[in-house]
Amino acid sequence: MAPIQPIKNYDYLVIGGGSGGVASARRAAKYGAKVLLIESKFEQLGGTCVNVGCVPKKIMWYAADNAHRKHQLKSYGLLSESEDGEVKFGDFNWGLIKTKRDAYVKRLNGIYANNLNKEGVEYLYGFAKFINSDGDVEVTLTGDQEIPFLEQGKSFKQHEKLVFSSKKVLIATGGTAIIPPKIEGSELGITSDGFFALETQPKSVAVVGAGYIGVEFSGVFQSLGSETHFIIRGDTVLRSFDDIIQTTITDYYTDKLGVNLYKQSGGVTKVKATSDGKKKVYLGNGKILEVDELVWTVGRKSLIDIGLDIVGVKINDKKQIIADEYQQTAHPKIFSLGDVVGKVELTPVAIAAGRRLSNRLFGPEIYIKDKLDYDNVPSVIFSHPEAGSIGLSTKEAKEKYGEENIKVYNSKFTAMYYSMMESDDLKSPTAYRIVCHGPEEKVVGLHIVGDSSAEILQGFGVAIKMGATKKDFDNCVAIHPTSAEELVTMT
Amino acid sequence: MAPIQPIKNYDYLVIGGGSGGVASARRAAKYGAKVLLIESKFEQLGGTCVNVGCVPKKIMWYAADNAHRKHQLKSYGLLSESEDGEVKFGDFNWGLIKTKRDAYVKRLNGIYANNLNKEGVEYLYGFAKFINSDGDVEVTLTGDQEIPFLEQGKSFKQHEKLVFSSKKVLIATGGTAIIPPKIEGSELGITSDGFFALETQPKSVAVVGAGYIGVEFSGVFQSLGSETHFIIRGDTVLRSFDDIIQTTITDYYTDKLGVNLYKQSGGVTKVKATSDGKKKVYLGNGKILEVDELVWTVGRKSLIDIGLDIVGVKINDKKQIIADEYQQTAHPKIFSLGDVVGKVELTPVAIAAGRRLSNRLFGPEIYIKDKLDYDNVPSVIFSHPEAGSIGLSTKEAKEKYGEENIKVYNSKFTAMYYSMMESDDLKSPTAYRIVCHGPEEKVVGLHIVGDSSAEILQGFGVAIKMGATKKDFDNCVAIHPTSAEELVTMT
Repeated sequence: MAPIQPIKNYDYLVIGGGSGGVASARRAAKYGAKVLLIESKFEQLGGTCVNVGCVPKKIMWYAADNAHRKHQLKSYGLLSESEDGEVKFGDFNWGLIKTKRDAYVKRLNGIYANNLNKEGVEYLYGFAKFINSDGDVEVTLTGDQEIPFLEQGKSFKQHEKLVFSSKKVLIATGGTAIIPPKIEGSELGITSDGFFALETQPKSVAVVGAGYIGVEFSGVFQSLGSETHFIIRGDTVLRSFDDIIQTTITDYYTDKLGVNLYKQSGGVTKVKATSDGKKKVYLGNGKILEVDELVWTVGRKSLIDIGLDIVGVKINDKKQIIADEYQQTAHPKIFSLGDVVGKVELTPVAIAAGRRLSNRLFGPEIYIKDKLDYDNVPSVIFSHPEAGSIGLSTKEAKEKYGEENIKVYNSKFTAMYYSMMESDDLKSPTAYRIVCHGPEEKVVGLHIVGDSSAEILQGFGVAIKMGATKKDFDNCVAIHPTSAEELVTMT
Repeated sequence: MAPIQPIKNYDYLVIGGGSGGVASARRAAKYGAKVLLIESKFEQLGGTCVNVGCVPKKIMWYAADNAHRKHQLKSYGLLSESEDGEVKFGDFNWGLIKTKRDAYVKRLNGIYANNLNKEGVEYLYGFAKFINSDGDVEVTLTGDQEIPFLEQGKSFKQHEKLVFSSKKVLIATGGTAIIPPKIEGSELGITSDGFFALETQPKSVAVVGAGYIGVEFSGVFQSLGSETHFIIRGDTVLRSFDDIIQTTITDYYTDKLGVNLYKQSGGVTKVKATSDGKKKVYLGNGKILEVDELVWTVGRKSLIDIGLDIVGVKINDKKQIIADEYQQTAHPKIFSLGDVVGKVELTPVAIAAGRRLSNRLFGPEIYIKDKLDYDNVPSVIFSHPEAGSIGLSTKEAKEKYGEENIKVYNSKFTAMYYSMMESDDLKSPTAYRIVCHGPEEKVVGLHIVGDSSAEILQGFGVAIKMGATKKDFDNCVAIHPTSAEELVTMT
């Protein structure tokens, strides 16, 4: 038998059109190699993963995951049960969730109290004020309460005053949401505190302020069925975040979620009550809205009415307490941290700063210089979809390092979960951005929008804090099928 | 006025019982400091975060997120719409999802083809076989097809044979699921391929095999309403994973999800068809099950029937192709990777190995030593809840480094999402474990179970691959409220 002559000659012949074969074939072709790929399954490129593995499996998993939602939706007040036991979708039961949520918060309050008891921290409920330059503190009780560590069995009365001294004092009084004082009728609106106190769902609502709280509340109201008007001064929400977050959320809120966004509104100029209990909201651009509820999310202020002048603790022009990197105020024995300082107003920042301060003040020698590093603190926005951010925005990175030294990687896609949705309106976007600096492509910023962003960001935060480069990202093999895997395969 | 005398003296007085104050107070008390904490809001410890911030906000976000599920559940075949437009829960519409899933897979097949076209990779559908020691390849076409790069306009016929030569050849033929050959009647069962081919949902099903595919299929069947019998040989599922994953998933499947798990089953000894089309499954422990469908998830085998002996490519005792770390087989011009090699059978591993091989073979000089590092490859299981793993299990770490050099951090908790569920049965568990080595506590293993584990693991994978220590984990500020934050605050 004469040898069979090949009909064509290649640089690279790949047997198998699955994940590995296709990837290798494409990469070889990219370098100019002449490549032939042979797949045995007719018209089924992609191999096990695409055809009888990861992909159809994950779709079935999504279905199964959603099957669990029936009970979960009921628990979240989204379903109603008729007398014959039939479970149906109804209006969102705001009151039910409010009650359960309050009960949960109460439970957490109790856990906090238990923890303090366990650790031997004494505590009481009252307003504290400094009464002399030594930092002695007078406390006016804010409720009738037993204070067993002062006297067993006695009930101390509300408004009673007690004075304590201490070697060191920490001011961690936090902040509170503000109602803009100079706008006529602004007191007709509520703040985030009022939002959490709402017993019933407003049919229509206006939310004022483009920050993360306004974005979160607008998303919640609109998703739960309230007609939602969202009033901002500029063209995008979340102005302090990278523009990929700004535009992705702004576009999705207006184009898909159905929020009525008032860009370049000129702000709210006046609020009036109507005879039927509604609020008329006048915008700077001439528009007038009539809504059941008005929510201000225009900023917060520090709670500093505790006699700071008596101890000489200084505040800045935003009326926040000034503390150095070691949380030290102007008074040698007084320290401050958390929202009242206002550096990074996040719970875990306050916790971390608080622990490190106590490490330093009361802990062993090794902690003598312990302090919180406020760089590269991750933060997230519970918008729809979620967003998360760590490090510098593109703009900040270019300003700091020069545009020519910054390389930005972008990826926008629709998560696999939405592959089963018929309408594009039901598809939530995913948008990822990695901001890199210098020839080694050190990651100086990461900005993500999409489902599970809050959970995804934590591990990448660890890596970035360790000084990760783009190459370090790419060195970890992807986890398939996920959204997060896109972050380690971006080109 | 005489100065007021303090009634009690402290080491540390904390004004504000919020996140920062409580954390700092507790840490100070831990070091033996005498601490007083003063909170102004009566019986509301926890500050803004717990009472009017993160916590109630996230609960409302969960409700809003679930509100979006109505349409999503419909898209996933879990709701039915009556004639008058009422949307109700019904039986899962398996056929609908099968059709949509197939269409999605078809779409992905097309995307793969498009990508090959774009990159200039030539491809065809056929079985490839080596025909001489030079590695020339004969292809038997597996369907009628046009092969424009051979001849424009001509339709090549199924079974037609073509021969190609190439400077280098890659074997990436993958693997396929097996049916145990020695069990009587085993052919009455299906494999994962059959699972994906199912047009209707079996009312009852037996799944055999404790590996991740068995766990995933059992979870899907049970969640979607099939009576599910899960047959394993030992006491736990997922035996190759850390025991925190084994026990958490095993316990949840049996105690909460409702899977009928047959531990110490002695395996399947015989399968018989019944007159009404069911399968009688005989277990080694004497039990007999009768089910609509039997699914084998007992292993996979490499697809190697391509004339390996002709080119002298060697296989191991598992009949997998032997390739070195550079994917080199025994034949100098033939390479192999992916499931057919069987080292780490994951899509992204095959992709990464494939790209690196082409970098090395066809890319620029800098890639001359490029190869995939198979250490610390993350992998996940789409169980209910999800699980994920990277690095060494506790057992492996102790064997490798000695028990005295290993420190294990554990955390088990219920994610906040489930705080609104009345019944414990609806609450999915979360369990995290960090395995550390040596005094510097280098993280050598991370094992997590809980919602979003697949997404959570990716970033931590990057960090671990970079050589993260426990301290590196803790250095990143937590993202609140998430589950992932637990991983950076474990003690």
